[in-house]
Amino acid sequence: MPGPLTLAQIAARLGGRVVGDAEVLISQVGSLESARAGQIAFLANPKYRASLATTRAGAVVLAPATEALTRLPRIVSDNPYAYFARLSQLFNPVGIPQPGIDATAIVSPRATVPQSARIEAGAVIGDGARLGERVSIGAGCHLGANVAIGDDSRLYPSVVVYAGCRIGARAMIHSGVVIGADGFGIAEDAGVWVKVPQIGAVIVGDDVEIGANTTIDRGTIDDTVIEDGVKLDNQIQIGHNVRVGAHTAMAGFSGVAGSADIGRHCTIGAAAIILGHLTIVDHVHVSAATVISRSIRQPGTYSGVFPFDEHASWVRNAALVRHLDELAQRVRALEKHIAGEGKDE
Amino acid sequence: MPGPLTLAQIAARLGGRVVGDAEVLISQVGSLESARAGQIAFLANPKYRASLATTRAGAVVLAPATEALTRLPRIVSDNPYAYFARLSQLFNPVGIPQPGIDATAIVSPRATVPQSARIEAGAVIGDGARLGERVSIGAGCHLGANVAIGDDSRLYPSVVVYAGCRIGARAMIHSGVVIGADGFGIAEDAGVWVKVPQIGAVIVGDDVEIGANTTIDRGTIDDTVIEDGVKLDNQIQIGHNVRVGAHTAMAGFSGVAGSADIGRHCTIGAAAIILGHLTIVDHVHVSAATVISRSIRQPGTYSGVFPFDEHASWVRNAALVRHLDELAQRVRALEKHIAGEGKDE
Amino acid sequence: MPGPLTLAQIAARLGGRVVGDAEVLISQVGSLESARAGQIAFLANPKYRASLATTRAGAVVLAPATEALTRLPRIVSDNPYAYFARLSQLFNPVGIPQPGIDATAIVSPRATVPQSARIEAGAVIGDGARLGERVSIGAGCHLGANVAIGDDSRLYPSVVVYAGCRIGARAMIHSGVVIGADGFGIAEDAGVWVKVPQIGAVIVGDDVEIGANTTIDRGTIDDTVIEDGVKLDNQIQIGHNVRVGAHTAMAGFSGVAGSADIGRHCTIGAAAIILGHLTIVDHVHVSAATVISRSIRQPGTYSGVFPFDEHASWVRNAALVRHLDELAQRVRALEKHIAGEGKDE
Repeated sequence: MPGPLTLAQIAARLGGRVVGDAEVLISQVGSLESARAGQIAFLANPKYRASLATTRAGAVVLAPATEALTRLPRIVSDNPYAYFARLSQLFNPVGIPQPGIDATAIVSPRATVPQSARIEAGAVIGDGARLGERVSIGAGCHLGANVAIGDDSRLYPSVVVYAGCRIGARAMIHSGVVIGADGFGIAEDAGVWVKVPQIGAVIVGDDVEIGANTTIDRGTIDDTVIEDGVKLDNQIQIGHNVRVGAHTAMAGFSGVAGSADIGRHCTIGAAAIILGHLTIVDHVHVSAATVISRSIRQPGTYSGVFPFDEHASWVRNAALVRHLDELAQRVRALEKHIAGEGKDE
Repeated sequence: MPGPLTLAQIAARLGGRVVGDAEVLISQVGSLESARAGQIAFLANPKYRASLATTRAGAVVLAPATEALTRLPRIVSDNPYAYFARLSQLFNPVGIPQPGIDATAIVSPRATVPQSARIEAGAVIGDGARLGERVSIGAGCHLGANVAIGDDSRLYPSVVVYAGCRIGARAMIHSGVVIGADGFGIAEDAGVWVKVPQIGAVIVGDDVEIGANTTIDRGTIDDTVIEDGVKLDNQIQIGHNVRVGAHTAMAGFSGVAGSADIGRHCTIGAAAIILGHLTIVDHVHVSAATVISRSIRQPGTYSGVFPFDEHASWVRNAALVRHLDELAQRVRALEKHIAGEGKDE
Repeated sequence: MPGPLTLAQIAARLGGRVVGDAEVLISQVGSLESARAGQIAFLANPKYRASLATTRAGAVVLAPATEALTRLPRIVSDNPYAYFARLSQLFNPVGIPQPGIDATAIVSPRATVPQSARIEAGAVIGDGARLGERVSIGAGCHLGANVAIGDDSRLYPSVVVYAGCRIGARAMIHSGVVIGADGFGIAEDAGVWVKVPQIGAVIVGDDVEIGANTTIDRGTIDDTVIEDGVKLDNQIQIGHNVRVGAHTAMAGFSGVAGSADIGRHCTIGAAAIILGHLTIVDHVHVSAATVISRSIRQPGTYSGVFPFDEHASWVRNAALVRHLDELAQRVRALEKHIAGEGKDE
């Protein structure tokens, strides 16, 4: 961990405007609630504004709109959350993995593994696999034949990458991820399902992070594609033949059914589902738990979730939803009646 | 991979009617978008009809209704998707696994493993486990005591099967699947949860495919049962004591809560949830993201999802949903008023 | 397994009132449907009352309200399900694991492992990890540096616990669970996502059960906390910085987004989602598939799910939901019209 830095030194590296004592020493980030002297916190979500008054942090990062709310030494940034992200990276750098192949790893003699790579206990590297420089493969990972992993990528323990899939540089792939399992391709024939072989692969771009237990299926014929800079949270499911456009972020439990095409710079909320064979343009934001059932051609924010309520109220309203058709007909009848009155007069 | 075949040879094996040059040579399947000469594509979803005009495939499989839309050599089938599935199987056969037990696998001396079976690196086979002929157990799999796996079944790396569970023949089980973990049996007693031991097992029939990271819990007392020919996509959860009837297919993220009974030949859409202790008859189709909260006694298609919309529209309509009761009362008041008018006259 | 006990002996240990032959011998629990002589079943859910008439069980556990419905020897308890849970524990005790470290496990010399602990094949125990007495670590588990596991805890095969996380006593953690992967902390900056290092840990209390393939993310700065007695089903996702209060139970597929605070003694239904930065007080019950989008300050039951219906009905009603705003305006117009009539008179 790097030594302490003054606010002035931090600003010299990361930008931002220092207000107050620029010589205060900072050695780690902290939260508004728990930071102590020597730690720097941040305020981005106005919800936590009250904590600013009581924090014992040594300094804070905040936006121009809130800089007057504290007397603490502070760094003012137009994007305090991104500033804080870089600041935390400064104090918590990702180390270069200690190179070496554990004695219990099983590495095919036909795999390409540079001296700088690290392969932990029990990992299995298949025939023809190619690892980039400084790649780190966690314990118990399994890379199938001809898998390629780009420079500086890190797989945590228990990741499985099926044969033929390719992952770019600087990936961070968390435990339990499965990349390249068969897509759900089955054709019904006289009441029995016939399997459609899944002969495509999964191609993951550079700078992609994939959360724990997420699954990305290989393509039926062509490849499933995750473009550069995509960030996937935990327990996401990406179906076969999907494209997720560059710099799109998807929250936990969200899913994309087969052959959907998601644009760039989208955000998909937690537990949102994109149905199959749809197209979503760039810069679309899907709210949590929303089901997207047709293509979206215009950027914007889209939502659809039944509002929760006290159980008894929900029971009443849900029953009415199931009979909305009748309610609408009754309104129509009233309108006719009144229109008829007018005619009668 | 088998050598190239003419359309005539393909039709001789798989049926279908050849239209156009029956001697064109095909060596692999392809998609309408990316197939080249020597590859055969298919058209089943009318959505992709436009691609038929531009495809560079050497031939296509399609239905009688669309056979006139192209001049390419073609095979006409009443079920082009199932035909294509079999065609792809022809060019992409599943190999018989290379038999042998990896030196790093841990196989109990009390397990039964035929010479034809394959056990990959680091897999653990418990006491009393029985593997069928040509079974393939992927790296890092764990089979508990007395697990049985039928002939020709394949477990991809990192599958866990708890003690006492049985899997039929020709299963394909993808990475990260957990079969036989404890069901969620807890009884509340004075604010504390008391665990109900889960002493049943999981019984999986023949010809079942299970997608990556799916979980199937063991029964509380009796067994959880997945019947023959069931196809489960990724990240599905099957609760304890459930039965999934033969030839039912469930899409990703769908789930069945404890003690529900699902019929045969059902399809359960992505992220659909069947609540506990329900019965669903054969030939029921549940749409994606639908929550089934009571038993279904009639075959048919059932749906229930809040339609998505632009965020601002959703906000307005969702607020009204929460006050539907009041709207209905206002309509009733109007009806009374008008009925009263009539009486007054 | 313990020898058979008479109903009188069972009641002497666990309480309850015996009705009928107190000397009938019981050696195992069973379900109403499949129990045979020598087995004891239970009736808690009135839905299964009809099975009471046909059961071949040797005895049953039931509530005072139903004790007259059978002539079988029976134990009457105010809480038959909890009684049955303890009874099943009596006949199906969790064994103390056979101590010992498998020859293929990789245990850091800087880890603390008592003689009473069990470490199965291929498990990896990191530097500074500390295991309590009688801890059992399944095959292929991976404990990162400085992980602590309390006495009598059991990890099934293929569990991953990232560095620095701590788990209390008597935990039962099922296969595929990932504890301590990075939370989904990303800050947008000019269209690119900047990673926020996740330097907190996960702290799990005593007597916690965690279902298969569940994921619990480490905190951004402070820790993610699962308090004593929490029960988590399969495939749950707990985001960073969340607190789940003591004795709360969450069903399969449910999830809590980052920084939410869930009270004690809550129940969260299957596939329910709690959005981020919310507070939920103690004794809140969230129905299955409900999305909680704002804080809940009052105990009670909360629901919100679109009621399912036959597809055609749903189509009609869902379309009307998207135009509720217009329907409400039409009702308002009718009210105005009628009010205007009144004024005219």
